[in-house]
Amino acid sequence: MTPFSDPAAFAAALAALPRADAASRTAALERQARLTKPSGALGRLEEIAAFMAGWQASERPRADAVQAVVFAGNHGVTAQGVSAYPPEVTAQMVANFEAGGAAINALARACGAELSVVPLELDRPTGDITRAPAMTAEECLDALQRGAAAVRPGTQLLVVGEMGIGNTTPAAALCAQALGGLARDWIGRGTGLDDAGLDRKAAAVSAALTLHGRACTDAFETLRHLGGREIAAMAGAILAARLERIPVLLDGFIACAAIVPLAQDNPRFTEHCLAAHCSAEAAHGTLLARLGLDPLLRLGLRLGEGTGAALAVPIVRAALATHGEMATFEEAAVAGPQ
Amino acid sequence: MTPFSDPAAFAAALAALPRADAASRTAALERQARLTKPSGALGRLEEIAAFMAGWQASERPRADAVQAVVFAGNHGVTAQGVSAYPPEVTAQMVANFEAGGAAINALARACGAELSVVPLELDRPTGDITRAPAMTAEECLDALQRGAAAVRPGTQLLVVGEMGIGNTTPAAALCAQALGGLARDWIGRGTGLDDAGLDRKAAAVSAALTLHGRACTDAFETLRHLGGREIAAMAGAILAARLERIPVLLDGFIACAAIVPLAQDNPRFTEHCLAAHCSAEAAHGTLLARLGLDPLLRLGLRLGEGTGAALAVPIVRAALATHGEMATFEEAAVAGPQ
Repeated sequence: MTPFSDPAAFAAALAALPRADAASRTAALERQARLTKPSGALGRLEEIAAFMAGWQASERPRADAVQAVVFAGNHGVTAQGVSAYPPEVTAQMVANFEAGGAAINALARACGAELSVVPLELDRPTGDITRAPAMTAEECLDALQRGAAAVRPGTQLLVVGEMGIGNTTPAAALCAQALGGLARDWIGRGTGLDDAGLDRKAAAVSAALTLHGRACTDAFETLRHLGGREIAAMAGAILAARLERIPVLLDGFIACAAIVPLAQDNPRFTEHCLAAHCSAEAAHGTLLARLGLDPLLRLGLRLGEGTGAALAVPIVRAALATHGEMATFEEAAVAGPQ
Repeated sequence: MTPFSDPAAFAAALAALPRADAASRTAALERQARLTKPSGALGRLEEIAAFMAGWQASERPRADAVQAVVFAGNHGVTAQGVSAYPPEVTAQMVANFEAGGAAINALARACGAELSVVPLELDRPTGDITRAPAMTAEECLDALQRGAAAVRPGTQLLVVGEMGIGNTTPAAALCAQALGGLARDWIGRGTGLDDAGLDRKAAAVSAALTLHGRACTDAFETLRHLGGREIAAMAGAILAARLERIPVLLDGFIACAAIVPLAQDNPRFTEHCLAAHCSAEAAHGTLLARLGLDPLLRLGLRLGEGTGAALAVPIVRAALATHGEMATFEEAAVAGPQ
């Protein structure tokens, strides 16, 4: 799937998003009301079942084919001292993913998701956003297309993750640009930054906003100036999923920041997304609230890689298991309320 | 496992609880610090891994053998109009469990837990607690023993659930008796009670407390006077698990209320328990806070049956998968913080 041949095609795709199937959603909710439990007693599991029914256009949706894809990129802004870890760690972690030793490997195995890793020119970091645009238009389109191409046809549920030393800085810049507020409101400690590093990070985000703010005229230009390759690839994958009506489990702060410019241009963009979790990265809770998303899990993770999203896969499966397998009051000959 | 031959044996077991293995817990935390992730980045998954390590006395704990057991009982207090459903539903739902059509069946299958269902003399409801003790000493001991006997040796993680029309009323009475407060503070709508029903429920709890308060001299007498068969069986199962150092995932309001009298007599009782979720039943959040437990999930369930606990099984497995399978910084040749 490579639907973004140029910025206009990307904007056109974003402007004409397919919607969930309302009839299947309604049928799923009607089925929920007949299952052997008090009405509403499965809480958010009922809502998840209806959500999946709508996107799969099926009263009995499935999440057998779950794909997890992790995009990796490097960031010129690491020169500003915005990360606790050196940039070489991005490539080292990609090797760790490929060897099966990272957290996302364990979690993808645990939830039966097929994992693929897409390193994006790690030896060519993006421009330092305090001094230059992150990417040229060609580079940004390439990243969007690499993201879209990574989504496998037939996927029933998509987990999108990232690895990129320094990438909470462009993520904070994307949030501040699209949603307003000060740099300080959107930064956090990332992988474990100290106070001086936090000051450098705030300064870098402010500088990037001052330099690029006027150029951020739409989602594409915002991603290009302030984002990064793995960030644009996530945006491309999540948009491509939408075009195929594949529901997405959003991971942490960076994955959510990647779609902020898209949600800014089309507020319906997040409709095919479930927020898997709220991470411990300071601004993630605020970002989720601004996107109108209520996270399924709050377990204090702050790792990225798609780990929070992978953790929520069994919750979605559990929702569909109850939805698809439970007996109705009639089938089980159980009495209703007196 | 039937360690409660008489009330004194029950009290003795409760007074001499085994503890987790501190050395294994420490070894697990040390391993977490070496895994390829920033320190603490897996949030509560790290805490769960250490918890399981302590109880299994192993640096690399497992949750392959997961047992779910659902106890069912009937309650004389339903005569007071405290439930939206008629008491026949308890037996009908047991038949539904046995036929595989209830929510817990779907969730136990989804998480690979072996499910057993223990109906406790459904044709002989407990005494109406507004007028009489729920059980005789013999009946209470029998229920505790049935609970203990249901725990299979070799279980690595135990899910305990219940079914019993009307059982949020004795659960509320147990909370109010052990923890104080008014009946109103501990009641909720259960399976969907209306406002008039809620008034009847508050009155029933108040009447039970007035009638039995003085007789509730210890955990056994409290369970006997205010509890119910499935409630005592849950307490027996969770205590038996402790004696075998089997960690327990606590389900909803009733499961937590069942152990309140035990936690009152020995504040260390909850150490082998993880609160799986906070249910939508009004007082569950308060109860968890009073027990010092921070729930893993908040998904708005209010069904019982062990459903919330079963939902958390994959979270525990995910914690152990990352703990056991991730590479260390040294193994993966990944650089640490700069």
